[in-house]
Amino acid sequence: MHYLDHAATTPIVPEAKAALLAFLDGDFGNPASVHAYGRAARRGVEDAREQVAAAIGASPAEITFTAGGTEADNLAIKGVGTKLGGNGNHVVTSAFEHHAVLHSVEHLQDGGFQVTVVEVGSDGLVDPRRIGDAVRRDTILVSVMAVNNEIGTVQDMAAIVAAAKDANRSTLVHSDAVQALGNIPVDVHRLGVDLASFSAHKLGGAKGVGALFVRSGVPVAAQLHGGGHERGLRSGTLNTPGVAAFGAAAEVAAEEVHAKSERLLKLRDRLLEGVRAAVPDVVVNGTLDARVPGNLNVSFPGASGETLLLLLDAAGIACSSGSACQSGALDPSHVLLAIGLPPRLADASIRFSLGRASSEEDVRAVLDALPEAVERARKAA
Amino acid sequence: MHYLDHAATTPIVPEAKAALLAFLDGDFGNPASVHAYGRAARRGVEDAREQVAAAIGASPAEITFTAGGTEADNLAIKGVGTKLGGNGNHVVTSAFEHHAVLHSVEHLQDGGFQVTVVEVGSDGLVDPRRIGDAVRRDTILVSVMAVNNEIGTVQDMAAIVAAAKDANRSTLVHSDAVQALGNIPVDVHRLGVDLASFSAHKLGGAKGVGALFVRSGVPVAAQLHGGGHERGLRSGTLNTPGVAAFGAAAEVAAEEVHAKSERLLKLRDRLLEGVRAAVPDVVVNGTLDARVPGNLNVSFPGASGETLLLLLDAAGIACSSGSACQSGALDPSHVLLAIGLPPRLADASIRFSLGRASSEEDVRAVLDALPEAVERARKAA
Repeated sequence: MHYLDHAATTPIVPEAKAALLAFLDGDFGNPASVHAYGRAARRGVEDAREQVAAAIGASPAEITFTAGGTEADNLAIKGVGTKLGGNGNHVVTSAFEHHAVLHSVEHLQDGGFQVTVVEVGSDGLVDPRRIGDAVRRDTILVSVMAVNNEIGTVQDMAAIVAAAKDANRSTLVHSDAVQALGNIPVDVHRLGVDLASFSAHKLGGAKGVGALFVRSGVPVAAQLHGGGHERGLRSGTLNTPGVAAFGAAAEVAAEEVHAKSERLLKLRDRLLEGVRAAVPDVVVNGTLDARVPGNLNVSFPGASGETLLLLLDAAGIACSSGSACQSGALDPSHVLLAIGLPPRLADASIRFSLGRASSEEDVRAVLDALPEAVERARKAA
Repeated sequence: MHYLDHAATTPIVPEAKAALLAFLDGDFGNPASVHAYGRAARRGVEDAREQVAAAIGASPAEITFTAGGTEADNLAIKGVGTKLGGNGNHVVTSAFEHHAVLHSVEHLQDGGFQVTVVEVGSDGLVDPRRIGDAVRRDTILVSVMAVNNEIGTVQDMAAIVAAAKDANRSTLVHSDAVQALGNIPVDVHRLGVDLASFSAHKLGGAKGVGALFVRSGVPVAAQLHGGGHERGLRSGTLNTPGVAAFGAAAEVAAEEVHAKSERLLKLRDRLLEGVRAAVPDVVVNGTLDARVPGNLNVSFPGASGETLLLLLDAAGIACSSGSACQSGALDPSHVLLAIGLPPRLADASIRFSLGRASSEEDVRAVLDALPEAVERARKAA
C-alpha cells in the first residue's frame, strides 16, 4: 500500500509513540492529582507544553491543549465571540476555511453576529487587501487559515494580520494553522496572529489532541465547562499520553521541516511532471508558487474524483478527493468552488498529500496506476 | 508505590492497550477517509461503538464518542438546553454533581434558564421525591449523577427517572455515569435515562475519550461544529486508538464487574475495619449501604486532608482529598458540604478508591502508614 493522504492524517513518529507509551501505562496518573503519579503526569504535560510552544515560537502559558483542531477552532471563534460580543458583532472569514471555522462562524451568526465571507482568488490565496476592506469598526475577529487543507496554498498571514490591524487596531486575528505546522516553519509572533489552532495527528502525533495558541492577554471564554483545567479555559482531564506525544511530534516537526520540505518538493514535482505526461489536460488546483511542499491537488476533466479514488485505492494507493473530514458527502468541495472551479472540475479532483514517510516508490506507484485509472474513470462517467 | 486513586484515573487494561496500539501505528488512517486505511480505522470505531453500547445495554446508534466525560456532560446539558429551550427553560440538578454538570447548568442559567438545585441527604443519596417535587411543567431536563465521584454513593436512578417522568412526561433525564461503568452494572434502558455520560480512563481505557449515550429520538444540538462527524452531533476527527481502547475496556469492565465488585468489597471492608481500629473517631462520609465497592471516603477530625494526602504520598500511597479534577483548589469539597459536613470535617477528608489492580498489600500499606500520618497531620494542624 502507498499512503499519499498525509493531509488527512499522518502515521505517528517514533519519538511521539515513545512519549505516548511512557504516559499510557507507566506514568498513568491524572495530571490533576497531587500525589507522585499525578506529579509525573503533570510534568509530562508541562514538558509537552514547552515543546509545542517552542515549535511555534510561543511561550508555554500561551498554549491550551484541546481534543483536536476542530475543538481549537471552536474555542477560538466562539470563545472570542462570547467574550467580545459586547465590543462589536462582526466577524470576517474566508470562503475556503475548514468547516470547523465556517460552522463556528455560522454559530455566531445564528446568535446575532454579522459575518463577511471574503472571496478567495483562483490561485487559492486570500488577498490581504480584501481582508482590510472587510474589517469594520465593529469587527472583533478575522479568521483565515494559514494553509488550506485541500489545495495546500500558503497564505501571507503576516500581510493579512497587518491589513486587518491597519483597518482596526483592536480586531483579533485567528488562524487555523492545522496544516501549517510540520509543513512550513511557523512562528506565531512573527505572523502576528492572536490565536492559532493546531492538531497533533496532522504532524506525526496521535489523534484526539490539539492546541490553541492564545497570545498573552487575548480574551477567550471557555467553551467546555467543568473542573477548570487549562487555567479555566478548557475543562476536562488532560489526555496526558496524547499531549506528551504532541510535544514530541511538534519538536521533531520543527526540527525536520526544512529538510523534509526540500525532499517533498522534489517528490511532488516529480509526481506533477509524471501526471502531466500521462494526462496532458490535467488541471492543477491553486497556485504552485505558495503551497506546502507535499500537496498536489489536480482535476482530471471528464473523470469523477470519487471513482478515481476508488480505482487508485484498488491499486493500493491511498489519496483523497475533496476533504477527508467531509467524507461520505459527495457534494463538490467548497474549497474548489471557492477558488472558482466549475462543479464539474471540482468533482473531478484528487488530492495527493505527501509526508515524512513518502518515497519515490510511492510516486512511481501513482504514476504506474494513474493512466489506466483515469481512462477507466472517464469511460465510467 | 500503592495506587488507591482509581476514581481519579485507572491504569489501562491490557486488552485496551492492545486495541489502542493496533490503531496507533498499524491501522492509523483517518476514519473519515474512503480508502483502505480509512475503512480499517472506521471498522475499529464501529466495533468499539458496538462494544460500548453492549456494555451499557444501548444500541450502537445511541453512542456518540467525545473527548471525555466532561465533554459528554457539556454536550448533554447544553445540547438539550439549546434544542429544547423553546419548550421550557427550567433545569433540575443536585447539589453534589461533578463540576462538568454544575458549570454546564450554570452556563444555561447565564443564558436565561431557571435552575433548581436539589439538596442531597447526609447519606449521600438524592431522594427521588425531591426530584419529583422540583420538576415543573417547564422542566426540560433533570441531571443527576449515577455514582458520586467523591463518596461513591449509588443513586437509585430508576426511581429518580420515574419520579421525574411522573411529574412531567416530557422532561428528559441525564445521568453522569462516569463513575458507574466498571464499578456497578449499567443498563441505560433499565434505568430509563435519556442521556448518560461515560469516560474511558475511569474504567481501564485511555484518557481523552468518552461517550454520550443519547436514547434514540432524544434531541441534542451539537456543541462542536465542523465536519459533521458522529452523525453531526460531534465534529472532529475521531481519536481512533482511544476509541478502540474504550471499546475493549468497556467490554472487559462489563464482563468483570461482578467478580471485581465482590473482591473490592472485601478489600474495602478490611480497609475500613483497619482505619476504624487505628483512628476510632474516623467519620465515614456517605452511606456504606449504596456505594460502589472500591470507594472509601473518610474524615479524620483535627487533621488536614491535604496534609494527610502529602504524608501518605511520602509513604508511597496515592489517594485523594477532595476531587482530583479540582486539585490545586483548596476549597472544601462541594460534595462533602452538600451532604452536610461542616467545612472543618470536609477539609479533613481522604478518598481511597480501589480498582482492578488493588491488592491486600495496598490495604496493608495504608494501614501501616495511616496511624503515624494522622498523628502528624493532627499535630501540624
